[in-house]
Amino acid sequence: MPKVDIFIKNGLIVTVNEKMEIIENGAIAIKNSRILKIGKTELLEAEYTSDKIFDASSNIVMPGLINAHTHIPMTYFRGLADDLPLDEWLQNHIWPVEAKFLSEEFVYDAALHGAAEMIKNGITMFNDMYFFSKQTALAASKIGIRGVLGEGVLDYPFVCHNNSQEMIDYAVENQKEFSENDLIDFTIAPHAIYTCNKNNLLKSIEAAQKNNMMLHMHVAETEKEVKDSLKNFGKRPVFYLNDIGFLDNKVIIAHGIWVNDEEQDILKEKNISIAITTESHLKLASGFAPIKDYLAKGVNICLGTDGVSSNNNLDMLAEMDFTAKLHKAYNQDPTLLPASEVVKMATINGAKALNKENILGSLEEGKLADIILINRDSLDAVPMYNIYSHLVYTINSSDIKDVIINGKVVMEDRKLITVDEKELIEKAKYYQEKIKNNYNNCITFTS
Amino acid sequence: MPKVDIFIKNGLIVTVNEKMEIIENGAIAIKNSRILKIGKTELLEAEYTSDKIFDASSNIVMPGLINAHTHIPMTYFRGLADDLPLDEWLQNHIWPVEAKFLSEEFVYDAALHGAAEMIKNGITMFNDMYFFSKQTALAASKIGIRGVLGEGVLDYPFVCHNNSQEMIDYAVENQKEFSENDLIDFTIAPHAIYTCNKNNLLKSIEAAQKNNMMLHMHVAETEKEVKDSLKNFGKRPVFYLNDIGFLDNKVIIAHGIWVNDEEQDILKEKNISIAITTESHLKLASGFAPIKDYLAKGVNICLGTDGVSSNNNLDMLAEMDFTAKLHKAYNQDPTLLPASEVVKMATINGAKALNKENILGSLEEGKLADIILINRDSLDAVPMYNIYSHLVYTINSSDIKDVIINGKVVMEDRKLITVDEKELIEKAKYYQEKIKNNYNNCITFTS
Repeated sequence: MPKVDIFIKNGLIVTVNEKMEIIENGAIAIKNSRILKIGKTELLEAEYTSDKIFDASSNIVMPGLINAHTHIPMTYFRGLADDLPLDEWLQNHIWPVEAKFLSEEFVYDAALHGAAEMIKNGITMFNDMYFFSKQTALAASKIGIRGVLGEGVLDYPFVCHNNSQEMIDYAVENQKEFSENDLIDFTIAPHAIYTCNKNNLLKSIEAAQKNNMMLHMHVAETEKEVKDSLKNFGKRPVFYLNDIGFLDNKVIIAHGIWVNDEEQDILKEKNISIAITTESHLKLASGFAPIKDYLAKGVNICLGTDGVSSNNNLDMLAEMDFTAKLHKAYNQDPTLLPASEVVKMATINGAKALNKENILGSLEEGKLADIILINRDSLDAVPMYNIYSHLVYTINSSDIKDVIINGKVVMEDRKLITVDEKELIEKAKYYQEKIKNNYNNCITFTS
Repeated sequence: MPKVDIFIKNGLIVTVNEKMEIIENGAIAIKNSRILKIGKTELLEAEYTSDKIFDASSNIVMPGLINAHTHIPMTYFRGLADDLPLDEWLQNHIWPVEAKFLSEEFVYDAALHGAAEMIKNGITMFNDMYFFSKQTALAASKIGIRGVLGEGVLDYPFVCHNNSQEMIDYAVENQKEFSENDLIDFTIAPHAIYTCNKNNLLKSIEAAQKNNMMLHMHVAETEKEVKDSLKNFGKRPVFYLNDIGFLDNKVIIAHGIWVNDEEQDILKEKNISIAITTESHLKLASGFAPIKDYLAKGVNICLGTDGVSSNNNLDMLAEMDFTAKLHKAYNQDPTLLPASEVVKMATINGAKALNKENILGSLEEGKLADIILINRDSLDAVPMYNIYSHLVYTINSSDIKDVIINGKVVMEDRKLITVDEKELIEKAKYYQEKIKNNYNNCITFTS
C-alpha cells in the first residue's frame, strides 16, 4: 500500500471548495507538501498508509486561516499604548518606540513570537508589511509558516534605509534571495498615499512589474486620508491610485473603509482585493468598511488581524466573529455576512487576494497542505448544529489543536513543534522590561 | 499563625476598588467565604498560613466576571439557527424548539452545562431569565456558581405555567425556598412590554415589593419595540414603564438600545442599571446602545453575554473586547470606553446592578471571595504593558486558570472541580442528536 507523509482520518472536513462541500468521516492523504487525495475515510484508508496518522474523530478539519494584513514584528509593542487618538498613538508612542528599538535582531525575535502566536491561532499564511522584512522571512522559515512580506516604502529615511529606493531594492533583493523558499514571497509595500509620494509610487510599480511582485498598501483607512487626498491631489485616494496606474497591477489593499461607490467600482474593475481588519478599524475608530457594497459588487474581501498594537492579538477567529456580527448591525440586516461567507473570507478569499487561489485556501487534491484540526469535544464546542456558525460565532482559538503547513506538522495537540514556546515567552519578557525601562513616554505598567 | 481557608500569594492583583488599586506581588487571605485580608505578599505571609495555597507568581488576580444578562438553559440551542431575521429566528426556530424540548430535566442539564462553561470563562455570578428557573438554581448550586434567577412572566401559558400569576408565584416560592442558599437569588422577570401587559407588570411590581425582590426585564431591544409601544401605549417604552411605577423599584434592564435622551434621564434618575449584550445586539442587528450618553449621564452600565443562541458562547472577555472597540468606532472616538472602564463594567458595575456592590464586584477586605486567576505566562499574553488593556483587548478565556466562588475553588488549572466535564460534553451531544432528529425546522448539520 503506498505510504504518504501524513494521513488524517475520521474528520469532519470543511473543504471550502467551489461547492462548499463538507465531508463527514473524511480523510486526507498528504505527500510532498500537497494534498494527494481527499475523500471518505473508508475509501482512503484502503488506499494509503502512513507513519504519521491523525485520528480526527473529534475534530473539524479545514484550510488554514489566512491573515491577509498584519505587522507581526510589532508583537512586542502589544498593548503599549491604547485608547488614544490615532495621531497621538502613532506619533507619540508607536513611531518613537520603533525609532528607538527596531533592529534586525528585534524584528527577527518579535516576528518569531508573532508567527508562533499565529500558528496557535490556526493561521498558516500571513501577509505582512513592516521593515527589516528579511528578518521576518527568516523567522517565518524557521517556524514553518507561510509569509508574504512587504518592506514598507516611505518618502523619508526609516531605521534601516536611507531612502525609498533602498526600501524597494531591499524587497526585490529579498524576493530573489528567497526565490527557492516554498514558504516565502515578498511584495513591494508603499505604506500609504500620505507617506509615499507619486514618484515613489511609480518606482514601486516599476519594481513590482519588473520583478513580477505584488503591491501591498494601506488605502482609505481614515476619513482624514480622503480629505488630505482631495486637498493634495484634487481627488479621492482610489481615483488618485487609478490615475497613476497603481491599480493596473496585482494589488492587495488593507482597510478600504472610506471609498465611495465609484471607487468601489474601480476596485472591482481592476480586480483589487481588500483586506478588512475589523478589530483595528473599531479600536482606532477608523470607521466601518462598506463590506455590504463590496460584496454586492463582487469585490474580493479577505480578513486580517492588523498588528497587535491595534488589536491586541493575532486571533483570526475573533476577527471573523467581529466582522460577521458588526456588519449585520451596521446594515440593520441579520442575514448579511452569513457564517459560511466569513469562513471563505478567512481562507479562499485570502488565497485569491495573494494570487495563490490555485494552490491554497481550500482543501482540494493537488493544493498545498495547509490544514488545521479543531477540537470539537470541548465544553464550549457542544452542541454543534451548523459547522460554519460554529467556526465563526462559537469557538475560540484554544480549540485549534493541530496545524499543518506545507505538509509539515508545526503544532500538535497545541504544542509548537519547531520552536520552544517557553523561550519565546522569556524573550518577550526580556524585551518588555527593556522597553518599559527605556521609553519614557510609554504608558506605565499599572496605569 | 492563624490558618485561613485559601491563601493566594505573589499575584498581580487588580482590585477594582474605588481607587482602582493594583497590588504588585499581592496576596489574599480567604476565610469563611470572605476576603479576610488583602495586601503585599511579604506582609500577609507573615500573618497567615493555609492548607490551600495558590502561588500566583505568573497570574493576574481579579474579581470574578459578572454576566449581567443571560439565558443559560438555552445552551443546548447553541448555533441552532443563525444569520436570520429576529422574528424568523424566534418564531420559526427558538420558540418551536423550546415548546418541544423544555422540561425540568432539560433545563437542569443545559443550565449545568452553561454554568460550567461560564466558570471556564471566568464568570462567577450570572443574572438569568428563563423558565423552570428552580432547576437553574439547583444546577448553579451544584456547580457552585452564584446565580440571580428570573422566571419569565408572560401573558400567555408557557411550558410549565398556565398563566402569569403562576410564573410570579413560582419565582416568589423559589426565593423563599432558597433563602438560606448563599449563592442563589431570584428576581421577578417580566419578559418585555410586548409579551407582558400592564396588568401583569403591576402584579410583578407588587410581588417584587412584597418579597423584596429585584425586577429584570428586556427593554428597548429593537426599534420595532419602540414603534409598537408608541402605537399601543402612545408613548415610548421607558415612559410607559415609568408611568406605571415599574422604575420605582430595584430594576435591571437588559439592552436599553432604543432609548432617547429623555428616557436616559429617567433611567438615571431612577437609578436603573443597564446590562449591555454587545455581541447579541450586533448578531441580531438590534442596534448600537447609546453607551456614550449613558456614561455621560452616569447611568450604571454592566455587561452580559445574552443566551448562546444569539452569541454563540458565554465568553465575557469577548463581550468586553467587542464593547470597548465597537463604541470607539460608533462614536468616532478612540478614547471612549478606556479598558479600565470596561473592566469595571464586567465586575463592580454588575455587582451594583444586582444590588450586591457591598459584598461583591471588587477585591476588598470583607467582601465575598469571588476571584479569578489569569495566566500571564502564555504566548498571547506577553509582553504586557497595561494590565487593563491586557484584560480587555489581548487575552482570551483559555488564559483563565483558577476560579474561586464564595471562597471555594470551582476550577483549578482549568479543571472543573465540582462537575465531570466529560460527562457534560457527552450529555450535550445526546441532546444535540435528540434535537437534530426530532426538530424538522432546525438548520441541517452541514448547511
